[in-house]
Amino acid sequence: MKNIIIGQSGGPTSVINSSLAGAIEYALQSDEVGKIYGMVNGIEGLMQDYIIDLGEMFRPVPHELNRLKHSPAMFLGSCRYKITGNDEEYERIFEFLKAYDVGWFIYIGGNDSMDTVQKLSAEAAKRGIDVKFVGIPKTIDNDLNGIDHSPGFGSAAKYIATCVREVAYDTSIYSIKAVHIIEAMGRDAGWLTAASVLARQDNMPAPHLVYLPEIPFSVDRFVSDVRKKLYVYNSVIAVVSEGIRDDEGNYISARSTTGADRFGHARLSGAAAYLKTVVEEQIGCKVRALEPSVLQRSAGHIASNTDVSEAFNLGTVAVKAALEGKTGVFSTLRRTSDKPYCVEYGTEDVAVVANTEKKVPVEWISPEGNDVTPEMVRYLRPLIRGVAQTPYRNGLPDYIDIRHLDARAQKYRN
Amino acid sequence: MKNIIIGQSGGPTSVINSSLAGAIEYALQSDEVGKIYGMVNGIEGLMQDYIIDLGEMFRPVPHELNRLKHSPAMFLGSCRYKITGNDEEYERIFEFLKAYDVGWFIYIGGNDSMDTVQKLSAEAAKRGIDVKFVGIPKTIDNDLNGIDHSPGFGSAAKYIATCVREVAYDTSIYSIKAVHIIEAMGRDAGWLTAASVLARQDNMPAPHLVYLPEIPFSVDRFVSDVRKKLYVYNSVIAVVSEGIRDDEGNYISARSTTGADRFGHARLSGAAAYLKTVVEEQIGCKVRALEPSVLQRSAGHIASNTDVSEAFNLGTVAVKAALEGKTGVFSTLRRTSDKPYCVEYGTEDVAVVANTEKKVPVEWISPEGNDVTPEMVRYLRPLIRGVAQTPYRNGLPDYIDIRHLDARAQKYRN
Repeated sequence: MKNIIIGQSGGPTSVINSSLAGAIEYALQSDEVGKIYGMVNGIEGLMQDYIIDLGEMFRPVPHELNRLKHSPAMFLGSCRYKITGNDEEYERIFEFLKAYDVGWFIYIGGNDSMDTVQKLSAEAAKRGIDVKFVGIPKTIDNDLNGIDHSPGFGSAAKYIATCVREVAYDTSIYSIKAVHIIEAMGRDAGWLTAASVLARQDNMPAPHLVYLPEIPFSVDRFVSDVRKKLYVYNSVIAVVSEGIRDDEGNYISARSTTGADRFGHARLSGAAAYLKTVVEEQIGCKVRALEPSVLQRSAGHIASNTDVSEAFNLGTVAVKAALEGKTGVFSTLRRTSDKPYCVEYGTEDVAVVANTEKKVPVEWISPEGNDVTPEMVRYLRPLIRGVAQTPYRNGLPDYIDIRHLDARAQKYRN
Repeated sequence: MKNIIIGQSGGPTSVINSSLAGAIEYALQSDEVGKIYGMVNGIEGLMQDYIIDLGEMFRPVPHELNRLKHSPAMFLGSCRYKITGNDEEYERIFEFLKAYDVGWFIYIGGNDSMDTVQKLSAEAAKRGIDVKFVGIPKTIDNDLNGIDHSPGFGSAAKYIATCVREVAYDTSIYSIKAVHIIEAMGRDAGWLTAASVLARQDNMPAPHLVYLPEIPFSVDRFVSDVRKKLYVYNSVIAVVSEGIRDDEGNYISARSTTGADRFGHARLSGAAAYLKTVVEEQIGCKVRALEPSVLQRSAGHIASNTDVSEAFNLGTVAVKAALEGKTGVFSTLRRTSDKPYCVEYGTEDVAVVANTEKKVPVEWISPEGNDVTPEMVRYLRPLIRGVAQTPYRNGLPDYIDIRHLDARAQKYRN
């Protein structure tokens, strides 16, 4: 009887742990699986032999899988390790997999992590090693190919739309002219920025303007757009993507004094802060820049239940596929209907998703470049549905214990 | 039969509308009250004759009061108008109250608004005008005297504690040294910053450091505190109040390039952004500054149910007091027990609350000035309890329609 090993990699989302819970649940119920291992800090942890026994952890307390399902970030910790492809590295990885008698390797992550799955499955085949490698997709950026939408995106979308609606209520109370510029994550893809339009309703037109990185950003046009909206509305809310660039391809955020990080931790942020100063100078009304930053990706308390369920299901589908002998694939979903919203699960070759980026189609952006089309709204709407059943204790979300990650820190230190 | 008029004033909270709902509900059920008027934009709206008929709005749809109860910000809009006390102003106000045949005047707001209640009730008495003036307290800052805690504070406290917990999960995933500096509102009072410690639990010590404005802030001590915590923890989360000042009384936020607003809209913000640059320079690890800004005060989706209920009850108590003939008072609550948490409602002279500020007692701050004591935690804990029953539609909080505020904007324009 072979063992299964699971890892998480890349940036956090509200539902990566939902996928982990789905994978563990499926493995716990299978007669074929021996031990259920977790690599702490992904492939990097594996190479340092930092492994925990998930079966031992959860078999006695299966209800804790429900708490795991509703806890944001990454129970197993993360890494940003990219497989270099040298022999020594492969040997180290396969040695550990052999030592732990692993038959199935499950990796939850984005484009880079799917590259890991691809390389390891190809190399294992080449070496005649019988380990199946299967990926589970995740990213708030929604920039993965080969899937209708990425797990993690729906919850981030719900967060940003909720923010915009609440800021719109907040700013409605005064009758003075005011501009709020909200910066959404999503790197070079505009999906999350686009999702802010879900905040709109009959009685509230915010956000009035949205700017996606798929269209070159003109500061002058932005100021002119804001000016026009201020003529109609007292309070204007604009959402800009962190990844907007000018027509020479330079990030607007690079013009900000706040976004820079002199220690080489590349981070896109500061576009809103920069545009705030521009609007103050050129229009001269009250302006606020809001950057929800990491709150967008870890706000488990406002997770989309659709997202939580799908992430969980994709976890089970991946383990099932691995047990059926598939390798070099990832679990995916295809939308079969918008109304009622239905999806169908399956698997797809990781080559489709590894190292690629799915941008917003330009046809889904308004000709003026400051809004999205009804097709985009139809695509987005189902993804934020449902209130996740986050457990609460003493008035706060009661997430799963992650003290094992401290133990890891201790281990690395010594 | 006399009419009642209600207004809202000052900055928004998640539960000012809960108080409004309580006031309307009590008035709707009373045989003594004729019309139920709302002044749009507070006393300023009254003086411009911008009045709506709340009885007409809600009597046919009483279930909408439940939506109002769970909608953040201010259904009636706000103002920052301070009574100057000149005769012309008083005459204008009393003239409108007479024209609308008002017997009871209810005002929901903070210290400044209670000053309005105090001045108008005194002036009415002097002029022999039979209108009763009663206040309903609100502020996320919790700086009101004469009440155990201010409605609005519990929800903001729950928001900030939730943020800190979620950021702690987000940052737990990597094993590199990182510092997050979160800036909490609260002006010159440290209550909201203190509330962030509710995020702590057995398995998670964040926030590791908290800095209240009641103690002079030393940048050097801050850097040394962070350094010490980084020795023990991979990831350190510090919460600083927007109102922290150095030992000469200057705001730390004034040192930031982002906090300034050249158009005279005084705003405290930027302390975290400034401290980020300091930690980057002096410690040199990964640092993020997070400023949840207005999201703290309008996040109805994570309102404290204790707060929502108490705000509603204070609305009913105020109208009841006015109908009983009280004037120059505000509705208040007194805590009678911590475990189980119980309160008792009553009224108190507005002189107690008008133009004063309740700071955090220095005994509730740790001797090191970077934490709070168990007494503070005991005080705070019950205030964030309970998940508010926010209505949802299409995956988002379904707040009350506020299009009547647009109508106001139109009116002001013409």
